[in-house]
Amino acid sequence: MARNEPTIRRVDEYLEAHRDVFERQLVELLRVASVSAQPDHDPETRRAAEMVRDDFQAMGIEARLVETARHPIVEAEWLGAPGLPTLLVYGHYDVQPAEPLEPWHSPPFEPTVRNGNLYARGATDDKGQMLTHLKAAEAWLKTAGRLPLNVRFLIEGEEEVGGAGLEKYVAENADRLRCDFAVISDTSQFAPGMPAITYGLKGLAYFELLVQGADRDLHSGTFGGAVANPINALCSILASLKGMDGRIQIEGFYDAVRPLEDWERAEFARLPFSEEAFREDLHVGSLFGEEGYTTIERKWARPTCDINGIFGGYAGPGPKTVLPCKAGAKLSFRLVPDQDPRTVDRLFREHVARVCPPGVTYEILTHHGAPAVLVDVDTPAVRAATRAVESGFGTRPVLMREGGSIPVVGLIKQHLGVDTLLLGWGQNDDNLHGPNEKFSLADFHRGIRSAAHLLAELASDSE
Amino acid sequence: MARNEPTIRRVDEYLEAHRDVFERQLVELLRVASVSAQPDHDPETRRAAEMVRDDFQAMGIEARLVETARHPIVEAEWLGAPGLPTLLVYGHYDVQPAEPLEPWHSPPFEPTVRNGNLYARGATDDKGQMLTHLKAAEAWLKTAGRLPLNVRFLIEGEEEVGGAGLEKYVAENADRLRCDFAVISDTSQFAPGMPAITYGLKGLAYFELLVQGADRDLHSGTFGGAVANPINALCSILASLKGMDGRIQIEGFYDAVRPLEDWERAEFARLPFSEEAFREDLHVGSLFGEEGYTTIERKWARPTCDINGIFGGYAGPGPKTVLPCKAGAKLSFRLVPDQDPRTVDRLFREHVARVCPPGVTYEILTHHGAPAVLVDVDTPAVRAATRAVESGFGTRPVLMREGGSIPVVGLIKQHLGVDTLLLGWGQNDDNLHGPNEKFSLADFHRGIRSAAHLLAELASDSE
Repeated sequence: MARNEPTIRRVDEYLEAHRDVFERQLVELLRVASVSAQPDHDPETRRAAEMVRDDFQAMGIEARLVETARHPIVEAEWLGAPGLPTLLVYGHYDVQPAEPLEPWHSPPFEPTVRNGNLYARGATDDKGQMLTHLKAAEAWLKTAGRLPLNVRFLIEGEEEVGGAGLEKYVAENADRLRCDFAVISDTSQFAPGMPAITYGLKGLAYFELLVQGADRDLHSGTFGGAVANPINALCSILASLKGMDGRIQIEGFYDAVRPLEDWERAEFARLPFSEEAFREDLHVGSLFGEEGYTTIERKWARPTCDINGIFGGYAGPGPKTVLPCKAGAKLSFRLVPDQDPRTVDRLFREHVARVCPPGVTYEILTHHGAPAVLVDVDTPAVRAATRAVESGFGTRPVLMREGGSIPVVGLIKQHLGVDTLLLGWGQNDDNLHGPNEKFSLADFHRGIRSAAHLLAELASDSE
Repeated sequence: MARNEPTIRRVDEYLEAHRDVFERQLVELLRVASVSAQPDHDPETRRAAEMVRDDFQAMGIEARLVETARHPIVEAEWLGAPGLPTLLVYGHYDVQPAEPLEPWHSPPFEPTVRNGNLYARGATDDKGQMLTHLKAAEAWLKTAGRLPLNVRFLIEGEEEVGGAGLEKYVAENADRLRCDFAVISDTSQFAPGMPAITYGLKGLAYFELLVQGADRDLHSGTFGGAVANPINALCSILASLKGMDGRIQIEGFYDAVRPLEDWERAEFARLPFSEEAFREDLHVGSLFGEEGYTTIERKWARPTCDINGIFGGYAGPGPKTVLPCKAGAKLSFRLVPDQDPRTVDRLFREHVARVCPPGVTYEILTHHGAPAVLVDVDTPAVRAATRAVESGFGTRPVLMREGGSIPVVGLIKQHLGVDTLLLGWGQNDDNLHGPNEKFSLADFHRGIRSAAHLLAELASDSE
């Protein structure tokens, strides 16, 4: 580390001098509505990929678009440090749909600064966080003319839709993509001023359930009571998934769940977390979750089931006395170690077959699945990351788990054999996936500084 | 009756000579998208009212628009037969929303003839059926220069939204609107070639249930399992309404239900109705309804509960891992004698209060309610109607009940003290309220002829 001291000072100075430039670049990227789930946004999704590629090329890193069935991967690498280890940086340039639009205080794709936060869809998830690693590399290249170790970048465009493009690409190019560690900034700090290293993520099993009654919409007076109503049937199926005790009622669902370890429950309990403040922030009268667990345990380490969307019949203004012919829901399970999404898929299908009422048919679409992740925290890489984050934020990061899913972490483990450092610069109230998504500009810059130091710390650890 | 013979022949000839004109007039009226539930259609809804008023004036009947809080009533009357009884004709010029649009084979407001049927929103419900009474009056006025008895018309524009305009108007003008019988054509024949007099209608209690969780949409990973999901909660409430035996589970719901009489069950069983053909026509694997009752009994004489629409969270393409903050459903109960919609309102609210899961709040909106109707079939007016329908259709009408609700029938009984003759010219498969609504042009003309004869038969009965 000592050897790099003068260099890292110049890197820090470069970062300080380019704060405005970096913010402008982030704003430009956020203006591009790269909503991967919505085909009418495909041109903008591609445009975002091109902007990321161009940014690499501008700083002197070779970069290219790798085509997939849908949205391209931006692949880039700087391999000018033979003999030194290689870091893989993953990020994604695609964003969640912005709907519903009405609650946004400023348009989702017109980035707006309020109270030191930048508001826009994708601000924290993941354009802002992803960009910290690009700007860190840029600072090294513009000051030292090189990076402290070899770095590969994989910036994909299908993270929010669970697209198969990246998995196919990594699986087919595993040899070529070899690396020693991976880093992703797509998570949150524990709290403002409490940066974190996330060592556990939940998995995901996402489904769409479509229920069909008659072959056409019917008058609810003339036909009501004589033929099954698919919305009633759908509600009956969905209501059967979870009990009033917050436990999922699917047979066998908990069989593979690894219980929380005692040290984790103790660590979690020590964190400054107020259930009352959490409840007040959400403006609910009471919290609701699985009996026997704290809110942090529920969020980080217990499997969940949420209906993400439901539709059917008439939803316009006023009443309409229709007996609709079909209805559907999007729903997902968050999984914990050692649940297998394929097993959950099977158990869910068996459950629906068991509880579906008579008179309707149904179809289940599996959208995407990923197993949960738990990373060993007692490694040189985690210690290097700890020092880097401390340099960037001025305080030691805490160890935490997360309720979100980052399927690529499992992918990297499976195909490249390495664990991933999850260094999150966001906040829990950043509204990722909801209206008014935001990212603290102060944390943006602290993240860039941490990412820049990470390159040096990982290199020095390997010397 | 004999005295009118030469006149009725001239009326019949007029009807025969004007078939094309009548069809063109119906098409013109159907082109006007008078969707009373949707405020953006308000100008067209008003336009439809004006067209109906103008048609009365063109045939020499005084008519005017009576303003209400929303859509005007068309009021018209011909009172040139002092000493003779007065018939009240009710109809409505407003239509159901056309959505969903995709399944329509021709646009809902571009009337199109296929196989002798006229396809358009409102074709049978109620523009086509309502118009039969206007054209019947026109034929009498153009041939005899008078009607056989006094006739009042009330053609409203809020039937499909349960608007309060007509009720207020009738209640406030009950003395002036006095009549001896009422007739409405807003029901169906029992089957093609089997015209019917409907002596029973179901009532209605229509609600909207809105469930609120947190104050904003959340990431289903970061927050899932820690806070109630309003869609899960909504489904749980809705699923509790009906059992697997098809019975409504609300405490006290069946207390006021009048059992079917033995003669009715026997009459219904004699009607040519195939449960298998009914099932096949709807393209369902099995029918579903309350145990212990036939399909006809379920449709006509047992209370039902249908969810008419449901909404919440993300319903666009692809997955979105959101934990939504709110969800809602429109749902309605069809009531039978002697259920009181106000009691059902109270029982429903008590039920939701009992079963609503923790962690969410809810709101219940009452959209509209009406009690069920049963009319005495052993009266001179019903016998006159029987003869009139036989003249129009060439066959004796059967007696039936209906699952639909026509709140105005209760209103007429309450404020004007008379029963209503429900003479329906539609078919069960006319798709009223659904896509591809239609009306048989042959039945349109048979209906006009029946309506024209009804005026004479009611007058002759009173001589």
